[in-house]
Amino acid sequence: MAEIKCVGILTSGGDAPGMNAAIRAVTRSAIYGGLKVKGIYRGYRGLITDEIQEFHTQNVSNIIQAGGTILKTARCKEFTTPEGRQLAYDNLKRHEIDALVVIGGDGSLTGARIFANEFNFPIIGLPGTIDNDLYGTDSTIGYDTALNTIMECVDKIRDTATSHERLFFIEVMGRDAGFLALNGAIASGAEAAIIPEISTEVDQLAELIQNGFRKSKNSSIVLVAESPVTGGAMGLAERVKNEYPGYDVRVSILGHLQRGGSPTACDRILASRMGAAAIDALLEEQRNVMIGIRNDEIVYVPFSKAIKNDKPINRELLDTLRRLSI
Amino acid sequence: MAEIKCVGILTSGGDAPGMNAAIRAVTRSAIYGGLKVKGIYRGYRGLITDEIQEFHTQNVSNIIQAGGTILKTARCKEFTTPEGRQLAYDNLKRHEIDALVVIGGDGSLTGARIFANEFNFPIIGLPGTIDNDLYGTDSTIGYDTALNTIMECVDKIRDTATSHERLFFIEVMGRDAGFLALNGAIASGAEAAIIPEISTEVDQLAELIQNGFRKSKNSSIVLVAESPVTGGAMGLAERVKNEYPGYDVRVSILGHLQRGGSPTACDRILASRMGAAAIDALLEEQRNVMIGIRNDEIVYVPFSKAIKNDKPINRELLDTLRRLSI
Amino acid sequence: MAEIKCVGILTSGGDAPGMNAAIRAVTRSAIYGGLKVKGIYRGYRGLITDEIQEFHTQNVSNIIQAGGTILKTARCKEFTTPEGRQLAYDNLKRHEIDALVVIGGDGSLTGARIFANEFNFPIIGLPGTIDNDLYGTDSTIGYDTALNTIMECVDKIRDTATSHERLFFIEVMGRDAGFLALNGAIASGAEAAIIPEISTEVDQLAELIQNGFRKSKNSSIVLVAESPVTGGAMGLAERVKNEYPGYDVRVSILGHLQRGGSPTACDRILASRMGAAAIDALLEEQRNVMIGIRNDEIVYVPFSKAIKNDKPINRELLDTLRRLSI
Amino acid sequence: MAEIKCVGILTSGGDAPGMNAAIRAVTRSAIYGGLKVKGIYRGYRGLITDEIQEFHTQNVSNIIQAGGTILKTARCKEFTTPEGRQLAYDNLKRHEIDALVVIGGDGSLTGARIFANEFNFPIIGLPGTIDNDLYGTDSTIGYDTALNTIMECVDKIRDTATSHERLFFIEVMGRDAGFLALNGAIASGAEAAIIPEISTEVDQLAELIQNGFRKSKNSSIVLVAESPVTGGAMGLAERVKNEYPGYDVRVSILGHLQRGGSPTACDRILASRMGAAAIDALLEEQRNVMIGIRNDEIVYVPFSKAIKNDKPINRELLDTLRRLSI
Repeated sequence: MAEIKCVGILTSGGDAPGMNAAIRAVTRSAIYGGLKVKGIYRGYRGLITDEIQEFHTQNVSNIIQAGGTILKTARCKEFTTPEGRQLAYDNLKRHEIDALVVIGGDGSLTGARIFANEFNFPIIGLPGTIDNDLYGTDSTIGYDTALNTIMECVDKIRDTATSHERLFFIEVMGRDAGFLALNGAIASGAEAAIIPEISTEVDQLAELIQNGFRKSKNSSIVLVAESPVTGGAMGLAERVKNEYPGYDVRVSILGHLQRGGSPTACDRILASRMGAAAIDALLEEQRNVMIGIRNDEIVYVPFSKAIKNDKPINRELLDTLRRLSI
Repeated sequence: MAEIKCVGILTSGGDAPGMNAAIRAVTRSAIYGGLKVKGIYRGYRGLITDEIQEFHTQNVSNIIQAGGTILKTARCKEFTTPEGRQLAYDNLKRHEIDALVVIGGDGSLTGARIFANEFNFPIIGLPGTIDNDLYGTDSTIGYDTALNTIMECVDKIRDTATSHERLFFIEVMGRDAGFLALNGAIASGAEAAIIPEISTEVDQLAELIQNGFRKSKNSSIVLVAESPVTGGAMGLAERVKNEYPGYDVRVSILGHLQRGGSPTACDRILASRMGAAAIDALLEEQRNVMIGIRNDEIVYVPFSKAIKNDKPINRELLDTLRRLSI
Repeated sequence: MAEIKCVGILTSGGDAPGMNAAIRAVTRSAIYGGLKVKGIYRGYRGLITDEIQEFHTQNVSNIIQAGGTILKTARCKEFTTPEGRQLAYDNLKRHEIDALVVIGGDGSLTGARIFANEFNFPIIGLPGTIDNDLYGTDSTIGYDTALNTIMECVDKIRDTATSHERLFFIEVMGRDAGFLALNGAIASGAEAAIIPEISTEVDQLAELIQNGFRKSKNSSIVLVAESPVTGGAMGLAERVKNEYPGYDVRVSILGHLQRGGSPTACDRILASRMGAAAIDALLEEQRNVMIGIRNDEIVYVPFSKAIKNDKPINRELLDTLRRLSI
Repeated sequence: MAEIKCVGILTSGGDAPGMNAAIRAVTRSAIYGGLKVKGIYRGYRGLITDEIQEFHTQNVSNIIQAGGTILKTARCKEFTTPEGRQLAYDNLKRHEIDALVVIGGDGSLTGARIFANEFNFPIIGLPGTIDNDLYGTDSTIGYDTALNTIMECVDKIRDTATSHERLFFIEVMGRDAGFLALNGAIASGAEAAIIPEISTEVDQLAELIQNGFRKSKNSSIVLVAESPVTGGAMGLAERVKNEYPGYDVRVSILGHLQRGGSPTACDRILASRMGAAAIDALLEEQRNVMIGIRNDEIVYVPFSKAIKNDKPINRELLDTLRRLSI
């Protein structure tokens, strides 16, 4: 296996808080280990359009606290074609980049996997997504920040809900995974979470409305994952308004602000450790693995495992939410 | 004029951060001045349904930092009828309440004005609304907090907008007044504000899109007041998508979270000063005035003036926004 | 073993964010399980002075987001005497309290252990301390919030450090444990952490100052645990000023604000899960154990183990900090 | 008077949040008005050492939300000498800079005044200091942010003070001016403020301790300006401990973190308006004035007036604080 002398780094897919901390950690760990680093802009698109620049330790100064990604990100259709990937490979060769670190979610790692196999090119993935839906890691970069952002928003809405004695449906991200909705509900003291993994929401809602609301409490908040499975906050609110016309029902869709903001301590530390581990993995001749964290220890998860498997919801949490919302 | 021995206090209309600081200030200033204080729950409704309780200094301990209103708030149709107001008056008499302090916005002060005239009852109003749309005061309680909440949300969305190079339309509150949208745009470095007071938005937008975006900048944010005059963020986004199909346009509606949260220093100080001034005003035999702040000094604004007049937008701000968004 | 029908709950020692979330979770889980709950004020002192009150689900409404502890806390010398503990036991009997949940740190659990043995009284401990220094649990209630508070403070100080090109020593809590200093340093992108567990600080500092500062960087931040072992921020700053008179050295001692603030999502969820688990443990006839979390699962840790053992620092983190501060 | 074609900009003295927003506003307004802009690094020192660089609109992109100053700041002894100032003047001429915008506090504007007179050089000052101690302007850039930072810190400390029932002395900045201490006390619901302008603190403290504490309240917080006149928080705490040995007295010194952080909406808007006004003033051939804000309108304040006069404390605020702390 050829020695690695220069590492390229890119962020891809939806941005997540902590991506900059990961870029910083990859860059400095690589330089600390004697490697060159090149930053690739706009994800896979920059590989194809040749937006590549050498990175020194100063390039990543004072970015650990910044949301978004200084490398920017984009979706790229061309990279799904063999011709596009060939262009990407040619550019990598021309820049003498021997290995890639790709920070992104499910789709980004799928692209990485195909490219790595096609050109026998060493790639390490870092799980960068607020949804926490990658298998093999306890947490993904950005998840803790998004969870705290959601909680802070619900704290604010609760001020109004309590003052006006209303029933609020708040929609949060998580197309395929209810981690944000379920944990956000526990963290914010909400009454229920409607998530794609569990299909009993209708009964739960009826129960919530008949027993809980206007008995011991005078306001209620329900978190809803944005998934088509749940119907979304708007759909649920409509149903409740029809079935229980007496309630003062409101909807709030948190939307894009869940992606932004300065990362939490947890996400910065996770990104820092994972970024350093990515360089370790390359130097240990690991390839085509995603860096994960399990029981507070760094693990290597083969792309095939990380992408294809569904990460299960912890049922204890559902039970806790139910007991605490009485 | 009869001596005032007992003051009732209520919050009415939409809740606003700082209402609790105002409740605390009214309560403590009254007790400091030798008066009794009674808290009335759920606005005018509590007057009619007799939800009234004596307040001591401890009742308002540790609430200065809390969003919402511990007195709760509600809309009340009955208070718009003479019969409802008679019930309210009877309850006030029975509780030996000699004067009222009403914290709320335009609608709440309109109700106060009618009631005060009808029963010759002393009422002092405090401007409590995030919209800052009351005439005769430089600022209303809650406005500065809402402005900061909007700014923090836009800061987060900008992380994503910049990372993805998108054009964002963000809808903020302000049905009749563009203060939040215009000042929010300056504070967050947005490219434009679409407000009900100025009807040139279409041209502005076209100009913004043709000149600004993708020239010196790679993302743009436009703040839109939720008013029907502006069309709202969704309406504008649709129009832009149709006319300029190349742009990656997104919409975010901030919604109810703009009302909540711990009040800023500015709002807590304003509410504290205004609450103390409300008691001063009563002791000085002022009636049917709203407490205002002008040039950092407390002023008394007759209800008729505060409610009926439109507060003008400072055109210098529009000009500043335009110059700084190049 | 006698059936448990009524649970007492108290907080003891230094307050920690999330204690209220734990009080809420214990209270509601107990009521959900058919038990009575009694709140004991001011820790063990309230047991002796009989400050005990029944708690219903409303007593813990809207407290999940509040810092501090609604049950208050105090140190209590009398509880260290057999006479004091006898008084405490008599009060428990009189109130028909069959079991206790104690939320606190090392000292509080030591008291719990003695009392439990002396009177054969069922006690469950919850680890409530910002220091994260209890063995057998990956995290303690309050640690994540304190870590984020420290990080946010350092982010602010970094603005000034960078603008003025200074060397800052920032002192954080952690008398016996460097978790806050070390993880706080990684999270805030600091250059070094001086912690009681590792005694090589002088060399590190010399190296930091000679190589790092004024070479690739123009400011530096060092986090120092407040321990006598480290000398504290003030002591280190003095030494550096003497040895390297050219530097613009400043000190900041974060102090008590590290204990306060609204808990993070992580701490609220942890406290909620642990509070619910405390009731489960009692119903499962567990006694004299601390609830811990290991690998995201609830575990029971015997008091003797939790108190007596030192929790080790993860050396990988030290290495990561060093590589990322180049 | 010679036409102005190129404006230099620098920040000087202690950094203040909003300085970057001001740099952005000056830069963009100048470019909008057809002028060139040059950024000068490290305050007056950069003038002498020739650290000067042309600024385009992109140089100030995405900085409105950043604390500190991208131009950095420093103290500069050389600039207090005629030789130093001559060097500075020569560099300005060489860079074809026709006018300066100086952002800073009292000392920085004093330097500006001397230089402007000496070389008949057009200078506009912007009041950038968290202390709010410049005469002729209702507020200075950075003051509102520092006030909110203080308030948020006191909110956190109050959690602990209330939980432990303690008396806290919290030291805030403001060597010569009590604005931060007094307004911070009102905003955070503290019991008293000890400020340099009013020398009755001892009596106030005795009264506070004898009447207020342990009567209706179980904790107290006193804000102390760091001035030698007040003795600082440490000095006052010592005195109280000696005179009232029963109290659990604690001290917290907020220190440098008061200078940092992302600016509030108020400071960003103020800085944006003032930055734009600085360019207007230059184009209107104003010289040697500080931009101020009075009654929400931009005013020009001659340097001599801004520097030499003491800004009075509003006595109504002292009275409000006293009434609300019962």
